[in-house]
Amino acid sequence: MNTFATTIDDRYFDDYVVGATYEFGDIEINEEEIIEFADRYDPQAIHTDPAAAATGPFGGLIASGWQTGGLMMRLFVDHYLSRVASIASPGIDELRWHKPVRPGDRLSLRVTVVEVLPSRSKPDRGIVRSLIEVLNQDREIVMSMIAMNMLLRRKSA
Amino acid sequence: MNTFATTIDDRYFDDYVVGATYEFGDIEINEEEIIEFADRYDPQAIHTDPAAAATGPFGGLIASGWQTGGLMMRLFVDHYLSRVASIASPGIDELRWHKPVRPGDRLSLRVTVVEVLPSRSKPDRGIVRSLIEVLNQDREIVMSMIAMNMLLRRKSA
Repeated sequence: MNTFATTIDDRYFDDYVVGATYEFGDIEINEEEIIEFADRYDPQAIHTDPAAAATGPFGGLIASGWQTGGLMMRLFVDHYLSRVASIASPGIDELRWHKPVRPGDRLSLRVTVVEVLPSRSKPDRGIVRSLIEVLNQDREIVMSMIAMNMLLRRKSA
Repeated sequence: MNTFATTIDDRYFDDYVVGATYEFGDIEINEEEIIEFADRYDPQAIHTDPAAAATGPFGGLIASGWQTGGLMMRLFVDHYLSRVASIASPGIDELRWHKPVRPGDRLSLRVTVVEVLPSRSKPDRGIVRSLIEVLNQDREIVMSMIAMNMLLRRKSA
């Protein structure tokens, strides 16, 4: 496990080092939030209807995978992604939903820097690829992905 | 362009045919919804603060990529994913955010069946892999991905 030498307000491309792993965050999800999200974004009975979900493949209401992604992003933004150097995310690879997220679950992240790619065309920036694992309160991996983030480089002397 | 021979209430694994392409959906996003979503799931200034976003890399407020994913899912559930045969989604590959989504944008989907994989261990189901492209009102692709969906097979005689 590692700790950043920088705060999130002073973190640049250069501060993400391949192989470093970080664990952080604590966010809870409840039934009301699961249903509210799903009513707008993912209206399937396993996400919106506790009674129907009880007889479904997961034996109860579970969160939309897109909501789990949103909760991941909240922890990623609060604790990991640079607040001063982040430009955009080109995308995500190998997103997998491993286990259901249920009402009352508490999620945290384990993030490992997989690759750092300085831009060839723009020397002021680069892309960091990170393995993100979303853990529940039993330390089971519920979701994982490889995220890409484009970040500015630290201005050197 | 193709039309399903089945309604969404009577659609099974067997109804998704490799190469078939479908276009559907119309969903609008406004500034209030962008900010509300980002306050909870992606609190970066480009998603939460119109004034700060105006001076940022996109020249204005843009939707969280996870919200665009949620809007994609809404259209996918309303029009494409089987209501009777869908079990779960193992995950997504090659998710890319190509262009920003801004307040007032109207999104639709273009979906192409890429692969259908009958399960080897469970003969009652299979996985459909679909290329999903999210288009805006100018028919620009704002997001794309390869989605996997596990679906029950039609019960044959």
